[in-house]
Amino acid sequence: MQAEIITIGDEILIGQVIDSNSAYIAKKLNSIGIEVVQIQSISDKEQDILSALAAAQNRVPLVIMTGGLGPTKDDITKHCFCTYFEDELVHNPDVLAHIEKLFAQYVKVPINDLNREQAMLPSKAKLLDNPFGTAAGMWMKKGKTVFVSMPGVPYEMKHMMEQQLLPKLKQHFQRPAIVHKTMLTYGWGESRIAEVISDWEAALPDHIKLAYLPNLGRVRLRLTAKGNDEKILTAEVDALFENLYPLIGEIITGFESDQPIEAQIGHLLNDQNMSISTAESCTGGRIGAALSSIPGASSYFVGGVVPYQTSLKTKILEVPASLIKAHSVVSAEVALAMAEGACRQFSSDYGLATTGNAGPQKGDSDADVGTVYIALVGPGVRHVEHFNFGNHREKTIQKSVNKALEITLKLLERKVKKHLPIH
Amino acid sequence: MQAEIITIGDEILIGQVIDSNSAYIAKKLNSIGIEVVQIQSISDKEQDILSALAAAQNRVPLVIMTGGLGPTKDDITKHCFCTYFEDELVHNPDVLAHIEKLFAQYVKVPINDLNREQAMLPSKAKLLDNPFGTAAGMWMKKGKTVFVSMPGVPYEMKHMMEQQLLPKLKQHFQRPAIVHKTMLTYGWGESRIAEVISDWEAALPDHIKLAYLPNLGRVRLRLTAKGNDEKILTAEVDALFENLYPLIGEIITGFESDQPIEAQIGHLLNDQNMSISTAESCTGGRIGAALSSIPGASSYFVGGVVPYQTSLKTKILEVPASLIKAHSVVSAEVALAMAEGACRQFSSDYGLATTGNAGPQKGDSDADVGTVYIALVGPGVRHVEHFNFGNHREKTIQKSVNKALEITLKLLERKVKKHLPIH
Repeated sequence: MQAEIITIGDEILIGQVIDSNSAYIAKKLNSIGIEVVQIQSISDKEQDILSALAAAQNRVPLVIMTGGLGPTKDDITKHCFCTYFEDELVHNPDVLAHIEKLFAQYVKVPINDLNREQAMLPSKAKLLDNPFGTAAGMWMKKGKTVFVSMPGVPYEMKHMMEQQLLPKLKQHFQRPAIVHKTMLTYGWGESRIAEVISDWEAALPDHIKLAYLPNLGRVRLRLTAKGNDEKILTAEVDALFENLYPLIGEIITGFESDQPIEAQIGHLLNDQNMSISTAESCTGGRIGAALSSIPGASSYFVGGVVPYQTSLKTKILEVPASLIKAHSVVSAEVALAMAEGACRQFSSDYGLATTGNAGPQKGDSDADVGTVYIALVGPGVRHVEHFNFGNHREKTIQKSVNKALEITLKLLERKVKKHLPIH
Repeated sequence: MQAEIITIGDEILIGQVIDSNSAYIAKKLNSIGIEVVQIQSISDKEQDILSALAAAQNRVPLVIMTGGLGPTKDDITKHCFCTYFEDELVHNPDVLAHIEKLFAQYVKVPINDLNREQAMLPSKAKLLDNPFGTAAGMWMKKGKTVFVSMPGVPYEMKHMMEQQLLPKLKQHFQRPAIVHKTMLTYGWGESRIAEVISDWEAALPDHIKLAYLPNLGRVRLRLTAKGNDEKILTAEVDALFENLYPLIGEIITGFESDQPIEAQIGHLLNDQNMSISTAESCTGGRIGAALSSIPGASSYFVGGVVPYQTSLKTKILEVPASLIKAHSVVSAEVALAMAEGACRQFSSDYGLATTGNAGPQKGDSDADVGTVYIALVGPGVRHVEHFNFGNHREKTIQKSVNKALEITLKLLERKVKKHLPIH
């Protein structure tokens, strides 16, 4: 069962907007066994849209489109649908009532003709509700292909996809099972891994495919299995990954979860009834931002401090000036003292700290650009690690955030699962 | 002059990775007058790649590809090139020397056969250097179409694009001028704007196109002009925007800059020799993270604190408990006191603070979910604004960050340009 995604809008083609909708849609389709074979971004010109629809109809039984549903002149998706499906726009009173309600509640101005026009929809379309916006989604069929159009505003589209489209797709299409699982490794390059696991890779069965995903010091190994029975596929993939431990166990840090790592950390802290605070120098607050992006984070994330300038590490976190002088501000000792200072100042159980030099110039320390220390302290934990993430500022910051969250997750997991199998 | 972008890799099609490379490439191509008419993501299967190349060759004179250049078996772009261009791989000693140097410097293990294999490249390809990685870029021609292949790792691709590909494209292709300029508005929906400016919009000349880009409470209005002379186009666009001030002047907040807003704030602070610190509650540190993402930020960003739990606002920022009790923690008074506390604790000139309730549950205050106060204090400035950003957590956080940076930029600009024209 294959599908294509078409996103409509010049903002993507001129690079003003990154198309994050497609990744979200692709992931959701994959989760119900629908394989995305192409993603396409096209301009909002009628001819381009009609050509794309016709071409896609020849290839796949399902086409998901986003964009071009707004009230303004540059939004032409529904007019293109009318042309393509030989249909006409008709007034939909339910949609109009919904638009009026939204305006009364949030916008607090009366609706105008352009808003009213959004209640004019192709007569053959089955509609998908949009509780967060004024543009309804559409489901239409031509030949053997289903075309779905959703709004381009990400949170409107996501809600529509999850609440309405996915259940409808499950009902409408027979789908095989697809299982993806991704192993995380840290420390080796992809070529070294590939060399060490080459026999294992060569012996993979035809229905299971391996991909190497290198990024920022990590290489992720993804197995994708296709077949009829999800349980059997999952067992096959698990068994294959199990066989990697004797080969590259030292670099395996875990598996990619559907949950972001900051949510996994949150669950573990909640389970232990523990709290965490952050003291971030080179990461500038991004770790705190990640932790607090999770709903309910205030039950375990107490707060954080970004003592970006050296003197503040002493003033706010009580890191002794003598310690900074003796070891330099970018050092294991200062990282630990920052983490301990955070615990004290924020009255938290755990303290997570970063200090480093992301460049481009050397700062208040002699440490090489790219040098970063990450420390986690807490009940039974006093851990610090040293890294050099190279001379690319943004890379160094993001690697530091990733690594700090990884270290935290790993140490918290160890505490919970004391009898983890040792590979 | 038109181009297409093709990104290769299953990681995009299964939604594991968001394709941010295409937006970057599209923006850069636009900046030199090359219009991107399609962006396509396809799988790393040979047949799909060859079909995409052939189809694109029929449509455009330039095809930019990324991905599929790694050392492992799932990377097949150069093999596809050999098939498509009827070419063969030959050993390139310069590339091998570069790979060996990179490994000696960063990886510190000897290279293996897979790395050596990366120095085997199509004989007809002109190469593009990749100082940050092992995969060289390729430039090949078939018929009238130039095909360029670059690595998919974003920082490797970006460096190659800027340092090598753009100059080469400028030399090779005759290009018209394209000018994009985007006006920022805040406060009205797109339908209301469209109604008010409808006469203006209807009178736009054929070579200038308007797009509405609504997102998170802001509507951006983009004009795109195509022609021969960049100066004339720029003047036309500027004149058209000027005519919008009498119509919607009250909601115009400025123009989108090539520089991110946090960099613009940095420049203004540096110019004034002033510093800033942050005290973030509902935004969880994202404002500090944004400010510190700019190289050289330590010259004006002193630091920040995330007193996520209420008691910390008193402990760390010295917000009087009585003030919190009298006005609640989500209030204009507390936002101002937090900003003042940040100035004091961090010894900064300006203090920027947020306090609010992003939901999903009400927190330590009775404020409605979505309520946010943003305060900026500093020399001659004591400003606080109240917002309700609705009941979507991620939206509320991101809108708060955007708005806080906007307020800061606007107030800093006012200080600099005291004689701004009043529209």
